[in-house]
Amino acid sequence: MPKLKPEELESRRQEIIVAAGTCFLRNGFHQTTTDEICREASITPGGLYHYFASKEELIAAVIDHSGSTVVQRLQSILRESDSAETALRQAQVLFVQTLQDEEMDKATRLEIEIWAEALKNENIRTKHQRAWAMRQGWLEALVRRGIEDGVYDPETVDPKAMASLLLAIYTGLRVGRLLWKEDFDTTGAVRSLFLMQAGRIATDIPVPAVPKL
Amino acid sequence: MPKLKPEELESRRQEIIVAAGTCFLRNGFHQTTTDEICREASITPGGLYHYFASKEELIAAVIDHSGSTVVQRLQSILRESDSAETALRQAQVLFVQTLQDEEMDKATRLEIEIWAEALKNENIRTKHQRAWAMRQGWLEALVRRGIEDGVYDPETVDPKAMASLLLAIYTGLRVGRLLWKEDFDTTGAVRSLFLMQAGRIATDIPVPAVPKL
Repeated sequence: MPKLKPEELESRRQEIIVAAGTCFLRNGFHQTTTDEICREASITPGGLYHYFASKEELIAAVIDHSGSTVVQRLQSILRESDSAETALRQAQVLFVQTLQDEEMDKATRLEIEIWAEALKNENIRTKHQRAWAMRQGWLEALVRRGIEDGVYDPETVDPKAMASLLLAIYTGLRVGRLLWKEDFDTTGAVRSLFLMQAGRIATDIPVPAVPKL
Repeated sequence: MPKLKPEELESRRQEIIVAAGTCFLRNGFHQTTTDEICREASITPGGLYHYFASKEELIAAVIDHSGSTVVQRLQSILRESDSAETALRQAQVLFVQTLQDEEMDKATRLEIEIWAEALKNENIRTKHQRAWAMRQGWLEALVRRGIEDGVYDPETVDPKAMASLLLAIYTGLRVGRLLWKEDFDTTGAVRSLFLMQAGRIATDIPVPAVPKL
């Protein structure tokens, strides 16, 4: 193996992570072989092993990397919006675009495999939890800005609670669309969400107390 | 194997399904051995094989069985409520109770295993889709009744769309609670949902058009 400078090592490492992500997305975590990743990254098995000792280490790195990538993209929305309403509107557009993406179902399939792995493997669970905590952190910032700018009601909206709900909705929509196919109305569900958020689905539904869950 | 009457065969079959469900819930699908199921059901491996040729057949039967059991329980809510408001309130109570159940995280773990299996196995996918379509069908009936009784706005609420959204929320809340632990605020998310449904989180959020997803 030729000697590489630290920054070259790091950039090669990033290339391998992107290549592995491409393979995992294409065929799922379990179906992907190390050989396939080597071909995609143009590296020998020995070279790959120098960076990552196992497929588990690779998936952990892919989770980390995709978490950061998504959140960087999200943060630019908050940074570049001049008001909470603009930011919220752009977040809605991105949300719809993400669900429209042709690769979405593949990403959800990989996500479900990661969940199943996370239940068995502590390292993957930790990386996964952190990657989603980053997304939730961004949603919290969005909601907080919405409260400051008077879009959300400060009396009823708690940033962490609301961010958890939005994340749950996003997650459930992906699962429903992938697994329940035509029985599941993704488009209608998103419309209903936007209408519900705007307070336009009902006038007089009682709000029960919720115990600690 | 002693000769059994058809109804005895069926009742023994049901006992085995319940026993298998208990084992799967306790240790997950992959960790559960056939021996364990035999012990739980007090049956020999040869006897078990007479009813179910594989663990896959057993999990398919467990999915079917739990779908029917849940929906029977749900249907009694609709049948016994004298108004949509009562039915809706009882559905909220059941929703909270279900999320409070100590066994919930175990059930979600098994559910995630089933999703991963469903992506690989057509038979499991079909059973799983049907079991969730039953739950969604019940939610649709609940929403339809809410529209008839004036709880939901008939101009904005579509039963299938709303049922898909509610199912997505339930699913995402379970995943979040199991995998994102303390980062995820289950209690707050449910409170936010009830407030959002009642139109109490915001006054002036624009509702964008949603393309086909």
